[in-house]
Amino acid sequence: MAAAETNLPVDIRRIADIIKGLARITEPDRPYTRRAFTPLFLEGRAFLEQRFKAAGLETRIDASGNLTGRRKGRKSGLGTIMLGSHSDTVPEGGRFDGIAGVAAALEVAQALSDAGIRLDHDLEVVDFLAEEVSIFGVSCIGSRGLAGLIPDGWLSRTQGELTLRQGMIDAGGDPSRLAGQKRSDIKAFLELHIEQGPVLETERCDIGIVTAIAGITRIEILFEGQADHAGTTPMGRRRDALTAAARMVGAVERLGTAFSKGEGHFTATVGEFSIEPNAANVVPSRARILIDARAELRPDMERFIAEIDQLAVDIQRDTGVSIVSPKLVSDNFPTPADPLVMRNLEEACGRVGATHRRMASGAGHDTAWMARISKAAMIFIACREGRSHTPDEWAENDDIALGTAVLFEAVKKLDTDLQGAR
Amino acid sequence: MAAAETNLPVDIRRIADIIKGLARITEPDRPYTRRAFTPLFLEGRAFLEQRFKAAGLETRIDASGNLTGRRKGRKSGLGTIMLGSHSDTVPEGGRFDGIAGVAAALEVAQALSDAGIRLDHDLEVVDFLAEEVSIFGVSCIGSRGLAGLIPDGWLSRTQGELTLRQGMIDAGGDPSRLAGQKRSDIKAFLELHIEQGPVLETERCDIGIVTAIAGITRIEILFEGQADHAGTTPMGRRRDALTAAARMVGAVERLGTAFSKGEGHFTATVGEFSIEPNAANVVPSRARILIDARAELRPDMERFIAEIDQLAVDIQRDTGVSIVSPKLVSDNFPTPADPLVMRNLEEACGRVGATHRRMASGAGHDTAWMARISKAAMIFIACREGRSHTPDEWAENDDIALGTAVLFEAVKKLDTDLQGAR
Repeated sequence: MAAAETNLPVDIRRIADIIKGLARITEPDRPYTRRAFTPLFLEGRAFLEQRFKAAGLETRIDASGNLTGRRKGRKSGLGTIMLGSHSDTVPEGGRFDGIAGVAAALEVAQALSDAGIRLDHDLEVVDFLAEEVSIFGVSCIGSRGLAGLIPDGWLSRTQGELTLRQGMIDAGGDPSRLAGQKRSDIKAFLELHIEQGPVLETERCDIGIVTAIAGITRIEILFEGQADHAGTTPMGRRRDALTAAARMVGAVERLGTAFSKGEGHFTATVGEFSIEPNAANVVPSRARILIDARAELRPDMERFIAEIDQLAVDIQRDTGVSIVSPKLVSDNFPTPADPLVMRNLEEACGRVGATHRRMASGAGHDTAWMARISKAAMIFIACREGRSHTPDEWAENDDIALGTAVLFEAVKKLDTDLQGAR
Repeated sequence: MAAAETNLPVDIRRIADIIKGLARITEPDRPYTRRAFTPLFLEGRAFLEQRFKAAGLETRIDASGNLTGRRKGRKSGLGTIMLGSHSDTVPEGGRFDGIAGVAAALEVAQALSDAGIRLDHDLEVVDFLAEEVSIFGVSCIGSRGLAGLIPDGWLSRTQGELTLRQGMIDAGGDPSRLAGQKRSDIKAFLELHIEQGPVLETERCDIGIVTAIAGITRIEILFEGQADHAGTTPMGRRRDALTAAARMVGAVERLGTAFSKGEGHFTATVGEFSIEPNAANVVPSRARILIDARAELRPDMERFIAEIDQLAVDIQRDTGVSIVSPKLVSDNFPTPADPLVMRNLEEACGRVGATHRRMASGAGHDTAWMARISKAAMIFIACREGRSHTPDEWAENDDIALGTAVLFEAVKKLDTDLQGAR
């Protein structure tokens, strides 16, 4: 770890205190669970709001249900530099995913205050609503809302008797005002997040400068064979949906591995797989797979999709199993980080003595939505064994402190640079 | 179809009448369902018992819950020639599986009577209890019982509040007498059954002479990888249980196909396949497969098991996914048919003008249990497209009649031959 960290301009105790405080607000028998739209989430929000206020920030819940804390800048009309992440968790999630980013953002505001620094820009700290896949089956609700990008119909989604609309109201939002809520004043957005992968830890590198948030494409493929008696149907006379689907699984892994050796980040995973009738003595008649592919570079994804389409044709021809044309269930493009903000973050690493490397984010983040309305970039810090979305998720205080210091330095410099960039 | 069939010594109308009568006794909204241990099954039994009686047979329910119909032979002490199959169905099963065999057996008794033929041996027609996998999860209960081979503990199996013991009592059996019920008087057992496969239909062959009932071995394999984030975990750093399991599926198919080209019948199927956590964005951490392998020749099965064991080692080495040593969930040896009875059946085909071929049964049958206590063999007749265990299951009257005539001729000759064989 960099020797400079003992002289960092941020106070790790305050950060750790927030992380610990939120960790205590969890379903007791399955830590750490504080899902958006639950009473525990609102309890965590109340805790955060109190901390935002204690740091001298002017708090509010915006129309999308985001908690924001604001400090006015010296020059009115310059716009806002926003920092933040999210405090909701997945079920049985971790203590750092999102939470470290909110705590770091708040610490930047406090450290600026402690150092007697008032920015020219307004500074805003944000805890986005429902970054994780929520009880309504959708994610990044707050950041999408802030960017004016909540899809038509989402507000009517339900979980039991609760609509997303009502869930946002319960969180203090005002969905009736969503239409007018696209923010145009945000000049830069920065997020600190745990890597959720093993690269930084393995390479003993302090900071990941995120070059892009990978595009995520989900491809569903249905295989339709024939249910036959497993004992009496000769091997050569079967149309076995499972063996056809297994071939596709192998091909997805081979293709994913090949693409991952190219220039940009690439992963391909079959995460969902099921067969019918799933009975010991019956040749499987149906299979369904869902491919999750992620690309930093869009051309990689387009080649991947084309290869999968061709594989479907080949496997159908070879096996006699009908393959419903692969369906793009979702297909989101990669989001490149803003070059000016990235450069600022890299320079800030230099100033605080942090080693750094460029890397893509394979996971989705609120930053991807903020990039639609603002210059935006993010940094990663290491997490133990790359593990995330588990109670075992862990990040070291030293790493969180160093990352927060990088944000602090970057914000100070951006406050000037953004004025030049205008 | 053979020209001789219009002069057959059996009456297809009586057979068809029984098949139709039983088809009407079904759960009305999911034909054809008449599972053992249900009131509908007992209703079917009552119908059959009445027909057995009308044919002049002396009926009883034995200790194992089998319905038997008996005609005394001319020579007392010679023993019994038994014919039969089962009248229970799988859920949404067919009209012929088992049922055609019971109807054919009864018709042989009637045709002998019509022709004024009294055998030297006693003749017994049987409807075995619960040949199909029953609500208690086990099959061939009646034939196992008759052979004295119901495993310890089976009687205590439960479905809801019903024990198998009580189910047998409800069917008219007497489980308390099971211990003494192993029959030693049966000199030959013959069964007619639909093929449940496509071979006879494809080859336009009338009768399959079953050489052996394949041994069935079930092998469970558990794969233990690691659940990682699908977007952030580099391709080369995964331990993906699904891709490892998919490799095994491909290997099972390749091995099964290779063995099936050898001398004996061989099939290998992965019928059950599941993964965890089965979530779109998580690298699968666990997979379970259940292999169903069937061999006419035991050495084939032993080589297959050894190959699977080696594959598990290879795949674990190549993928880093831990593979729990493949577990033999069940491992039953093949049952060869009795040569004398087979020869009788072949000669009978010649006499009635039926084309025939030898073939193994890939499916299990009551005959496999009867072979433990008696000379036993069975014949197959074609079923449409090889389909079985479905309402679409179909066998032509002409084929059923021809098969019944083969049984009739074989029984007449066996009545003499068995006396020579003693």
